[in-house]
Amino acid sequence: MKIALAQINYHIGNFKNNESRVFDTIEKAKTMGADLVVFAELAVSGYPPRDFLEFDDFIAKCHKSIEKIAGWSNGIGVIIGAPSVNPDKKGKDLYNSAWFIADGKVQSVHHKSLLPNYDVFDEYRYFEPGTDFKTIDFKGKKLAITICEDLWNIGDDLLYRGNPMDELFKQQPDIMINIAASPFHYKQADERKNILLQNVAKYQLPLFYVNHVGAQTELLFDGGSLVINAKGEVCSEMAYFKEDLQVFDTDLLTVCNHSKPKPGKMELIHDALVMGIRNYFTKLGLSKAIIGLSGGIDSAVTAVLAERALGKENVYGVMLPSEFSSDHSVSDAVALARNLGIKHDIIPIEEGTKTVNHTLKPQFDGTSFGIAEENIQARMRGLILMALANKFNYILLNTSNKSEAAVGYGTLYGDMNGGLSVLGDVYKTDVFLMARYINKDEEVIPENSIIKPPSAELRPDQKDSDSLPEYDILDKILYSYIEERQGPKEIIAMGFDKKLVDRVLKMVNTNEYKRYQTPPVLRVSSKAFGMGRRMPIVAKYLAEND
Amino acid sequence: MKIALAQINYHIGNFKNNESRVFDTIEKAKTMGADLVVFAELAVSGYPPRDFLEFDDFIAKCHKSIEKIAGWSNGIGVIIGAPSVNPDKKGKDLYNSAWFIADGKVQSVHHKSLLPNYDVFDEYRYFEPGTDFKTIDFKGKKLAITICEDLWNIGDDLLYRGNPMDELFKQQPDIMINIAASPFHYKQADERKNILLQNVAKYQLPLFYVNHVGAQTELLFDGGSLVINAKGEVCSEMAYFKEDLQVFDTDLLTVCNHSKPKPGKMELIHDALVMGIRNYFTKLGLSKAIIGLSGGIDSAVTAVLAERALGKENVYGVMLPSEFSSDHSVSDAVALARNLGIKHDIIPIEEGTKTVNHTLKPQFDGTSFGIAEENIQARMRGLILMALANKFNYILLNTSNKSEAAVGYGTLYGDMNGGLSVLGDVYKTDVFLMARYINKDEEVIPENSIIKPPSAELRPDQKDSDSLPEYDILDKILYSYIEERQGPKEIIAMGFDKKLVDRVLKMVNTNEYKRYQTPPVLRVSSKAFGMGRRMPIVAKYLAEND
Repeated sequence: MKIALAQINYHIGNFKNNESRVFDTIEKAKTMGADLVVFAELAVSGYPPRDFLEFDDFIAKCHKSIEKIAGWSNGIGVIIGAPSVNPDKKGKDLYNSAWFIADGKVQSVHHKSLLPNYDVFDEYRYFEPGTDFKTIDFKGKKLAITICEDLWNIGDDLLYRGNPMDELFKQQPDIMINIAASPFHYKQADERKNILLQNVAKYQLPLFYVNHVGAQTELLFDGGSLVINAKGEVCSEMAYFKEDLQVFDTDLLTVCNHSKPKPGKMELIHDALVMGIRNYFTKLGLSKAIIGLSGGIDSAVTAVLAERALGKENVYGVMLPSEFSSDHSVSDAVALARNLGIKHDIIPIEEGTKTVNHTLKPQFDGTSFGIAEENIQARMRGLILMALANKFNYILLNTSNKSEAAVGYGTLYGDMNGGLSVLGDVYKTDVFLMARYINKDEEVIPENSIIKPPSAELRPDQKDSDSLPEYDILDKILYSYIEERQGPKEIIAMGFDKKLVDRVLKMVNTNEYKRYQTPPVLRVSSKAFGMGRRMPIVAKYLAEND
Repeated sequence: MKIALAQINYHIGNFKNNESRVFDTIEKAKTMGADLVVFAELAVSGYPPRDFLEFDDFIAKCHKSIEKIAGWSNGIGVIIGAPSVNPDKKGKDLYNSAWFIADGKVQSVHHKSLLPNYDVFDEYRYFEPGTDFKTIDFKGKKLAITICEDLWNIGDDLLYRGNPMDELFKQQPDIMINIAASPFHYKQADERKNILLQNVAKYQLPLFYVNHVGAQTELLFDGGSLVINAKGEVCSEMAYFKEDLQVFDTDLLTVCNHSKPKPGKMELIHDALVMGIRNYFTKLGLSKAIIGLSGGIDSAVTAVLAERALGKENVYGVMLPSEFSSDHSVSDAVALARNLGIKHDIIPIEEGTKTVNHTLKPQFDGTSFGIAEENIQARMRGLILMALANKFNYILLNTSNKSEAAVGYGTLYGDMNGGLSVLGDVYKTDVFLMARYINKDEEVIPENSIIKPPSAELRPDQKDSDSLPEYDILDKILYSYIEERQGPKEIIAMGFDKKLVDRVLKMVNTNEYKRYQTPPVLRVSSKAFGMGRRMPIVAKYLAEND
């Protein structure tokens, strides 16, 4: 049997688009001689559809898509993900299902049993776990179909009590198929391959695995669909960050030695972010980005990624110097803009901030320069950038990094503005590595932007290190707390100073209110700020030195 | 047996505070002659602790609290909610448990079986469902202990497959006890009582129900703990929006005819919002609020609620007139501030906006007045309010209502600023009713603020009705779509114009990006914007007229 795996960039709720992509792919798969074409989890709706699933109208539209797809299934079998309705009065209203379609109609529907409900996943919010397990007989082969998480309850620490593949295995299948929606983080491709190889080793069956590709706001899907033969040899690892369609003859998978060079962490993050920016714009029907260029490394890296995602003609860099800006702020930013070939302007904020300070003189009289005055500058920049965005249809890209976002080193309604946060899941130390990666062949980002000490330049001679620990120490503490979920005791035991650890954790926890109001963050780590990290605002945990 | 119900305002993660409240209450209950004192669900941590539950350190602190509480249990039984660790390698790491403590030590631990995972609830994210059901023998009575949702799988459309009270009933208990964390919305107290009465009718047992009271950021807990005898008569309905402690003799519940006047919708929402503002400030250790007063009804109602929550000495109203502000804008706002006795200032924004327009002249030259210029005004107001807030330690209260938030009628980083949204879950038509409710005895809000046509005053003679449908129509469509989750077909079938419905639903869906960045919204309805409504941003559902 010839099986086609279709790795497609869907768009949530855009049924017209998703249908036409599926129809085209079915036709292409037929041309390529496929007997069966396999699409990803919840392909018809896009993933994750979130609370759209609570609308009967949305579910009806999913089913209409399935009906139409059935109309294209003459001469080819189709497996595709879509919600299905639970007919039982008990339990949640929906299943997350794989629909097997052939000969112009739906042949069977198979429900996901293990519903991830951690980090960015909310599947138990919508779906009833499947408890019925049946294989598919097709063209003389018995197919065991599972959906994403269904294969993940393997190894030592089991999150679920059941294992759907164990049940299916009892029916002696010939082939395993898994349709997935497995979002990217920079360690995920390895973890995913490892889990799939464990399944093959356990059941000694070939495995066809198909994933989503493309970005849905903050969630990035890297593709990397896999075919593994019964011996545990990788036969194909499909494209990363790109659509792909490949056909495999199940009889010709006896010896495989596919190998692909393993990209480094910075290359992965770079490609993920470029895709994330590009899809945010194309899926919203937008094209042009505006970025405040400070001359520093965060805005420089953001501008490079935006230029690579959208093209130089669609990126506009604006320098907004104040009285506290050093000369190199503007010159470094201009050098970057010239290297990228993007439109740029210099718009000083001094007259704006002076006027605001004048307006507030009756109230501020007798007080000394402080946070309020610093923030007026950051907010004046935000105001001017948004005015340009509104006037000329740009989307402002946010340039904050994860270290700043973590400790609240940024001004709400100022430099924390933007439609999308590009670097909000990249620690400052990794932003430096990203700049080096970008500059690997030629100097795109001016060397001076990389080597000068980071500064917000909101008061004379200010340095980040005046108020924050050095980034190489700060980022290690943050990583332990955020990604590894270590508590203060464990982090101190790693050798960090107790006072420093307490201070950093307190900063993270008391700045939840700021992060609540910031743009969606392109997720590249296993724990990004946003939907995958849910913290109370009004709380008092690790928020005082006690 | 004498049972005390302790309805307490906990603080998430503030173990010191929660412990001392519990210790005091145990002592008070002893003095009142109680044999058993019952605290609410997850009382030791506060509810909802959210991802703090993923930290071993946090769980260890919960268990330390339990140990300390055990030290206070000589001579009295204690039932209290806290997480417990799942010793099994299979399944999630934690249970949501009721701890039964007596004679100085933990006697038994009982796990929640039905884990709500809809709307604002994420319990399946953290907890394994309990599958073991055992009653408690105490002082000659058999107690059936359940936790909140455990009693809610009753009636026609069942969300879960099991029913823990059915299992406990087989052990022939004498009394039902339910510890809960049931957040307020203006219909919830009725629904809750109805569910509890259904349980009493089914099992013919008396029921002791204890709830949280107080606000945890956006989630408001109204208290209203209940005692119902076996005949289904309400014996006590404890205080709403206030702490309470009452003791009941189980032998004296044979005849009950407790009745409490049922407050109206506006009274409920009013009291809930006042509590919500007050707790936000006290739990964050803050005291003073700043509010932009436009002379309109939203900011007037917000100011009144803030004054009632924080006291007149802690509320600062600022009028920020522009060239487009009508005379009555300032005079109505000043009249309100005088009625409330709050500090107020008039700070014109004209010189600020003129300067920004001058700064942008090179870029804006030749373009005509539009959204960009409108938003500059709103953002200048936001900037000035935040500068005052930063300088003098105020928290800015957001004054947007739910109708505006729904259709995106507001300026991000402008009038959508604030630490907390007071009216973000109150439709405009209800804001009018709230103003009338506030003015029921005397004119607090100037009549003119109530009767004048709503306007953003960002261009000459602007009215909300220029760009929005009339609020009485708009709000009905929004309610059907947001609270009732009706699709376009159903709403049109209610008699609304198809074009209008399509336009409104498109406005709601395409403005998700704005709501993503707005402050937490005090939740008073069954479907508020925020954690309880999770929508994709980059999507295309009901987003075009197709």
